[in-house]
Amino acid sequence: MTSELSESFTLCRDALTRGELPRVWSLIVTIFGDLAQTPGARISGTVLGQITDPLGIKPEAMRVALHRLRRDGWLDSERSGRGSYHFLTDFGRTQSVGANDRIYGKPQGPVPEVHVLMAGDGDANGRRKLDAHLLTDTLLPLGSSAAIGLGPAPEDVDGLLVLTPSPDHLPAWLKSLIGPVETAQAYEHLMAAMDVIQGQLAHWSALPAEQKAALRCLLVHEWRRVVLRHPDFPEIFFPEGWPGLCCRHQVQDLLARMAVSPDLLLNRSSLET
Amino acid sequence: MTSELSESFTLCRDALTRGELPRVWSLIVTIFGDLAQTPGARISGTVLGQITDPLGIKPEAMRVALHRLRRDGWLDSERSGRGSYHFLTDFGRTQSVGANDRIYGKPQGPVPEVHVLMAGDGDANGRRKLDAHLLTDTLLPLGSSAAIGLGPAPEDVDGLLVLTPSPDHLPAWLKSLIGPVETAQAYEHLMAAMDVIQGQLAHWSALPAEQKAALRCLLVHEWRRVVLRHPDFPEIFFPEGWPGLCCRHQVQDLLARMAVSPDLLLNRSSLET
Repeated sequence: MTSELSESFTLCRDALTRGELPRVWSLIVTIFGDLAQTPGARISGTVLGQITDPLGIKPEAMRVALHRLRRDGWLDSERSGRGSYHFLTDFGRTQSVGANDRIYGKPQGPVPEVHVLMAGDGDANGRRKLDAHLLTDTLLPLGSSAAIGLGPAPEDVDGLLVLTPSPDHLPAWLKSLIGPVETAQAYEHLMAAMDVIQGQLAHWSALPAEQKAALRCLLVHEWRRVVLRHPDFPEIFFPEGWPGLCCRHQVQDLLARMAVSPDLLLNRSSLET
Repeated sequence: MTSELSESFTLCRDALTRGELPRVWSLIVTIFGDLAQTPGARISGTVLGQITDPLGIKPEAMRVALHRLRRDGWLDSERSGRGSYHFLTDFGRTQSVGANDRIYGKPQGPVPEVHVLMAGDGDANGRRKLDAHLLTDTLLPLGSSAAIGLGPAPEDVDGLLVLTPSPDHLPAWLKSLIGPVETAQAYEHLMAAMDVIQGQLAHWSALPAEQKAALRCLLVHEWRRVVLRHPDFPEIFFPEGWPGLCCRHQVQDLLARMAVSPDLLLNRSSLET
């Protein structure tokens, strides 16, 4: 189905995956978010297969993942002639657009608001309220009766003490809670993979469009997996030497040079209809 | 030793003590703080006995308490002729002056700073630092790994997260921690006692100076016991209807009308030397 894979492609792919296949449904979310986020954009089943096949993803796994994404309301599909087309639903697009800033955005400017919610010792109402916020908001638990979150405090804080942390005194335990060692390592791995891609960029223009799309989406996907692992706290809330910002710059530089022609979607669509 | 006790005196005294003798050493601290806080001021043993005897305090209890206060460095004594004189040491005066604002001061103006210190879950260093601050500072524990205190945070907060509570969202559990029901009741009892005194003020001028001093100091003492029971948080940190402010006004009004002639100390001193 796919063109012969160049050594350059497999080098980059293996550096990014480190031998582990990405979760298929999650990778598809990345692909649609990167290549077909605008309303009306769609990707044919054939092209989708040509993007995912070089990554080692089997057609059966694709079918299962697409079924799941349709069931969960992320994607919809329609048949047209002999082919099928997939596209983001309004719900899927909203989710996807919601992550754009974290994935493609510039690093944060001025320190945004950070809040801490605290329940009273033995105060069941407050504890329930805190648990509810932990379920629905992006909060990190601080011990058993407090949590820290980005942005202003939620409106419904009845029974909770709302606090603002002093940015001058952020203790090491908080920094390693917000930026754990494992996440820093994941950033380092991704940066090493980007060094490999950097070394292969001379061969980029020779790659078939689907393989370009595959590598680009795989990079976005691995970046997205790491960056969405932690809330987007201001830099000072992370341990010293935190690689997040450096990695973001490197991702953005590289994505600018790993462009995929928009014809990839258009041409194949017109061929197949 | 003392003049005959009038019904007016015993009514006021019993309303203030509610049948319970004050701790003698603590009452003596109140008496020196109220009547002999200025450098050079002293109270003769005879006058001190004449003040405490109508309150039901035995000479033996006075001796024990004075011994303890000398041992702890609060008071010193000297003999002169047939009498002895007691006075605050520099240490005792510093302690006494330090409490003046809480006891005699005006209610707080603008909301002063309040801080919360938080140790990390399972962070032994931070927990030790928090325990140290709990021992030495006026902090109220919030659960097992946090505490709330008045004023700016201490300097030594290594390992602790420093937070500022939002005054817009003070939950009921925090308010009842800062202003417990028992303390509110103690305020109410004191206000009821002050109503009794108020009703007897017509007889005030007829009281012997020592009995005036006894009632005045007993009122200051009972007030001091309640007001020093909780840190001086801003009004909004207390439960709704908190009687602290109202009680403070009533105490200040009453103390202004329960003046004790400064001759009480001078005359007796000159008589006895």
